[in-house]
Amino acid sequence: MDASLELVASNKSFGGWHKRYRHRSASLNAEAVFAIYLPPQAQSQPVPVLYWLSGLTCSDENFMQKAGAQRIAAELGVAIVAPDTSPRGAEVPGDPDGAWDFGHGAGFYLNASEAPWHRHYRMYDYVVDELPALVEAHFPVSALRSVSGHSMGGHGALVCALRNPGRYRSVSAFAPICNPSDCPWGQKAFSRYLGNDRRKWSEWDASELVAKAGERLPLLVDQGEQDGFLAEQLKPRALEAACAAARHPLTLRLQPGYDHSYFFIASFIDDHLRHHAGALYPR
Amino acid sequence: MDASLELVASNKSFGGWHKRYRHRSASLNAEAVFAIYLPPQAQSQPVPVLYWLSGLTCSDENFMQKAGAQRIAAELGVAIVAPDTSPRGAEVPGDPDGAWDFGHGAGFYLNASEAPWHRHYRMYDYVVDELPALVEAHFPVSALRSVSGHSMGGHGALVCALRNPGRYRSVSAFAPICNPSDCPWGQKAFSRYLGNDRRKWSEWDASELVAKAGERLPLLVDQGEQDGFLAEQLKPRALEAACAAARHPLTLRLQPGYDHSYFFIASFIDDHLRHHAGALYPR
Repeated sequence: MDASLELVASNKSFGGWHKRYRHRSASLNAEAVFAIYLPPQAQSQPVPVLYWLSGLTCSDENFMQKAGAQRIAAELGVAIVAPDTSPRGAEVPGDPDGAWDFGHGAGFYLNASEAPWHRHYRMYDYVVDELPALVEAHFPVSALRSVSGHSMGGHGALVCALRNPGRYRSVSAFAPICNPSDCPWGQKAFSRYLGNDRRKWSEWDASELVAKAGERLPLLVDQGEQDGFLAEQLKPRALEAACAAARHPLTLRLQPGYDHSYFFIASFIDDHLRHHAGALYPR
Repeated sequence: MDASLELVASNKSFGGWHKRYRHRSASLNAEAVFAIYLPPQAQSQPVPVLYWLSGLTCSDENFMQKAGAQRIAAELGVAIVAPDTSPRGAEVPGDPDGAWDFGHGAGFYLNASEAPWHRHYRMYDYVVDELPALVEAHFPVSALRSVSGHSMGGHGALVCALRNPGRYRSVSAFAPICNPSDCPWGQKAFSRYLGNDRRKWSEWDASELVAKAGERLPLLVDQGEQDGFLAEQLKPRALEAACAAARHPLTLRLQPGYDHSYFFIASFIDDHLRHHAGALYPR
């Protein structure tokens, strides 16, 4: 292992390994921690990778500890990589008011253009380029990639895939922020990270990007109907309308009774892993 | 629902429901929180219950969030009840030095006899009697019970079952403290909760109780070979020797590479749930 990757934790899991690493990120101009789950198949051959992007306040740990994804990943032979949700550290500016929906834990998977955020908040470059290059150089994985995420990370997954369909074989999201330009979380983040020119915002908004998508990667979205953030922040109907207008393929599943928690994610993670494995291991 | 049970949280999970309740516990002379997972089958018929006892520092949340047990519980039609690991609250004395291995989060599933602990530390009565009576009165469950747990909770599960084989259909444990009279965690807890008369300790030590067991409930134990607590605290070989001497049925599975974490528990929880379902739903 390259000395530039510092092993932070290692746990055997379903015959494979969950590992956490710390490294210096050029994109983020800061230290960063990510986790990788390597299924047992990786001991004998390169395996494809699902990138998982978590939601507000999360780190790499939430998904790895709560989603119950390792069992099915071990069955299907898919690695999972979970980055943090923002740059962190004393040198990285956070929310001036100490809020949880901006700054640390809330990078929104974009490249910030405005000071003081632009020096560190480049999670898009980190997730799309730097982290896959690092992972593909240091682990027994192939260059076949999929992307998924939850809430802010669902927004991130959709945006990464819509902007770079050639880099991913498949994309899915749980309760994504579908139209960040038109909800309080997104407006707070975009106005600070990107400034007030709304033309810039449209480059980071899934419901606006579907109209411009070239190669069309089908979108799979699960949304709990009892999710407390559904009406004000998530707005899946905006994405549905945009996909209908652009004839972009979308499977939107509204799940009765489910909320915004990892209990919801765990209940449907098998479906998503099978969706991705079908694209990563085409017959 | 009885007003004596206050609903704290409710999340749909694999077609069933994860719920947390607060209530006044007579055994603990304090408020207590427990969690219950009700599988979808409970909507139409009473289901049997697996009681899960967690380890040091845990609450009801660790297992419910990290073990990934709901998927298989929903498949098999088994409810899971997870109590806290000790009495808590401002009126409950904790470790005088603020340590994590005694007091709050470390009740050791026994009835304390020594002051000041005896006024609250009665997790054995709570887990064996009070909580099942409460659960069976208020939820769509049958009186068929199994018990399992991890580390300190593995000790608790073995002790509860060995002392009350008629109350449980099956028992299992992950990395249990097998011989608490002979390890630092157990000696610290027993000397304070029970005093220095070691004859009292033997009533709460699985490796001593197997010799006295009447009805013999087969013990299923999984232990990670890379568990950092294995040699000093857990001592499965003591349990194995005691079972061999007493001809008590034991399946001890040493799992190469696995540690003490929930990544280990999640990897084998399906096996344990199937073991319990086989006893709770006999053919």
